[in-house]
Amino acid sequence: MNVECDLDKVSAYADSQRGEYENNLKKLVDLAGVSMEPDRKSEILKTAAMAVQLLESHGATAKVVETAGYPVVIGEFHSGSENPTVTVYNHLDVQPADGAEWQSPPFEMKIVGDTYLGRGTTDDKGPALAVLYAAAYAHKNGLPINVKFIWELEEEIGSPSFAQFLLDNESALKTNSVVISDTIWVSRERPAIPYGLRGLQGCLFKLKTGAKDVHSGLTGGLARNPIAELCDLIAACFDAKSGEVKIPGFYDDVRAINEAELNNFVASGFDVGSFKKAHELLSTRTEDARDASARIWARPTFEVHGITGGYSGPGVKTIVPHQAEAKISMRLVPDQDPDKIIAALEKFVKAHNKDVEIVKEGTLKPFLGEFTGPYAEAASAAMKTAFKADAAFTREGGSIGAVVSMQETLKVPIVFLGLSLPEHGYHAINENFDWQQARGGIIMFIDYFARLAKIK
Amino acid sequence: MNVECDLDKVSAYADSQRGEYENNLKKLVDLAGVSMEPDRKSEILKTAAMAVQLLESHGATAKVVETAGYPVVIGEFHSGSENPTVTVYNHLDVQPADGAEWQSPPFEMKIVGDTYLGRGTTDDKGPALAVLYAAAYAHKNGLPINVKFIWELEEEIGSPSFAQFLLDNESALKTNSVVISDTIWVSRERPAIPYGLRGLQGCLFKLKTGAKDVHSGLTGGLARNPIAELCDLIAACFDAKSGEVKIPGFYDDVRAINEAELNNFVASGFDVGSFKKAHELLSTRTEDARDASARIWARPTFEVHGITGGYSGPGVKTIVPHQAEAKISMRLVPDQDPDKIIAALEKFVKAHNKDVEIVKEGTLKPFLGEFTGPYAEAASAAMKTAFKADAAFTREGGSIGAVVSMQETLKVPIVFLGLSLPEHGYHAINENFDWQQARGGIIMFIDYFARLAKIK
Repeated sequence: MNVECDLDKVSAYADSQRGEYENNLKKLVDLAGVSMEPDRKSEILKTAAMAVQLLESHGATAKVVETAGYPVVIGEFHSGSENPTVTVYNHLDVQPADGAEWQSPPFEMKIVGDTYLGRGTTDDKGPALAVLYAAAYAHKNGLPINVKFIWELEEEIGSPSFAQFLLDNESALKTNSVVISDTIWVSRERPAIPYGLRGLQGCLFKLKTGAKDVHSGLTGGLARNPIAELCDLIAACFDAKSGEVKIPGFYDDVRAINEAELNNFVASGFDVGSFKKAHELLSTRTEDARDASARIWARPTFEVHGITGGYSGPGVKTIVPHQAEAKISMRLVPDQDPDKIIAALEKFVKAHNKDVEIVKEGTLKPFLGEFTGPYAEAASAAMKTAFKADAAFTREGGSIGAVVSMQETLKVPIVFLGLSLPEHGYHAINENFDWQQARGGIIMFIDYFARLAKIK
Repeated sequence: MNVECDLDKVSAYADSQRGEYENNLKKLVDLAGVSMEPDRKSEILKTAAMAVQLLESHGATAKVVETAGYPVVIGEFHSGSENPTVTVYNHLDVQPADGAEWQSPPFEMKIVGDTYLGRGTTDDKGPALAVLYAAAYAHKNGLPINVKFIWELEEEIGSPSFAQFLLDNESALKTNSVVISDTIWVSRERPAIPYGLRGLQGCLFKLKTGAKDVHSGLTGGLARNPIAELCDLIAACFDAKSGEVKIPGFYDDVRAINEAELNNFVASGFDVGSFKKAHELLSTRTEDARDASARIWARPTFEVHGITGGYSGPGVKTIVPHQAEAKISMRLVPDQDPDKIIAALEKFVKAHNKDVEIVKEGTLKPFLGEFTGPYAEAASAAMKTAFKADAAFTREGGSIGAVVSMQETLKVPIVFLGLSLPEHGYHAINENFDWQQARGGIIMFIDYFARLAKIK
């Protein structure tokens, strides 16, 4: 095995940092920086301040850069302008945690053995911190590489200010490559290096048919029912059983998946049974691994996240609702264009039910990178160094809006070196991370930085 | 005009009682006796105790009768066993008030001029209290009639204990007729005496496809979406735009509405414009008065009251929900049988989506009475005495489960003498009642009791 670092020394370093890593992760997780909830602004700003303090205390320069939205924290371990530069991207904002079903409070990190339980542990604070410890080691040990950091605080709301931030700070952000640690493995035994991401187009369907909920005995049959009309519209938009989208033109620009990619997906060890277990699904739309992996990594979707309006308490309250809102998003794949997709949806919705208002929510373009070349090779080798396993080249079903922006502005190779596992509960209740992945991550990134130092 | 009471004296009596009526109504409304919410039990029991106290303080006998559910309060103004007996039915439990949109707290009655604002003011505490004041007057003035009271506390949950209560107390409840004050006029200018009620069959559609909400990027396309599958099922059950139910057999037993009834409906002055205004509807499924009145009074419906599950906060949270529940009810008309209807629905649902669980909720049979004969004539005349207007014989779109039970057990004529107006917001936010209707109600019932005293 080709190892680029002193593995014993690096492993000992990782082990020596465990207590401090855990303390710092807890400090970060205990700040409920939910970018989707406007009243969490102070926790976002506290997270930015703590990020600066973390970078500086490890010997990096750091500062908070203001944007039209929440700030971005940038930092650097500088070794010399003659050396190559890698930019690490992570985000420190988190998903909401509104479930009452959490085993422990989501914003009070709990350590149970090797497991870290809390919102943001795996997405993306735990991985962000692992990269920081690797970069600090590289710096102290004189590796000839500059490591820059971009820690975003609006990733979970689709990075609305990030493209402008990149344009405004282009000279400070000059780099030879970008590495992102915000993706998920196939399984604990099978690391993954994804090279593609789905995009996203969110929207709300809103329908108002009266000023207040009314009595279904008095008005039922004559009053319109906005929840039922949205159900009818949703059923017209897509087939809930097969997942097939029925909006004309929706599939027009979908790039065909080639056989080699499909073979890679299956060869990655993707398995429907394990997937169901990891996500605690009772059943899925297919049991076939080839179809299933293509569905989550390379095919677009139509999803209903919730329908509000009417009565939501126990039992049945016989009102006719006066308004309803469906929370919708479509995952998009190369080469679907979000603008064309939302236009096709708007046309379809207006034709089907002219009273439904569409409110456009977050837009993220899909991304497709390379899975060959020196950076992909370095990534694959570093994965093997740290985790003793061959990484699979897959795609990711999720969206990271910042990636497309960085591709368009920085114009350098972008590599995904994630540390999260399917059982870590990304965006779900009881989100967690663990020391095995943090430790391996520290080692992997040290090895990766050592390899990048040699790419001229 | 044929007036059966001393109108000046009776009117003066009503006016003299206004302050006390309002004080007592406020005491009742301020008790949040929501039968649908189990944690409101103490308020239900306090309502029962206050009802006994109200009856006794006006000179009636009264007691709380226990049932398997909430108690029933019964009482009597007894004038002599040689005299005819009329039984007054009202209910003192109320609908939930979970809206944040109320102008004033729903369980703190507020008096604004002649208007009484609060949950239960019109449904059914205000009318119940008006009848009490009429009966107290009749008793004090020696009218040769016995007036019995049945005040239920489970009406809003479909009267689950009422049929057994009637059987258990058959001898105490012997009567010559029943009068119910829990229905709504066509408009303030047009009193209505309904002779038919729709029934109701409620149910929940439940679907669970996983143990927790999952990330739509990670799982979308492969994970099933239970909200979307319920939308698909609801769209299959009925056409949300026309209201037409598509469940095979649903319409089989619907008794045809005859032309005379339809003519009465339209002659009642029913008007779609006024209806929309009263219920604050932006649009309706039809603008035609004949079609519209038949839709609300004499045709069955399929209604969705709410869909829970998934994300309900601001914006879009890109989860795939793991469970969903749709709150459904069907209004039924003569001669639809709720048992046959739920069986047809269950068969249809299982064939369409075998994983959907149906939980049966409240059942109420439809009711069809007479609109001719001495009781209907007395009711019509008393309406005219009090309100100077001819009552229209209509049907009601709502359901009063107790009515069918009383028809089956007491086997006497049942008359509806309601006092509520469309603008009173039955089951809606900002429910209200007013002194004009309370005052007229006191006069109307005194005149009605005087007429019943003469029916041998």
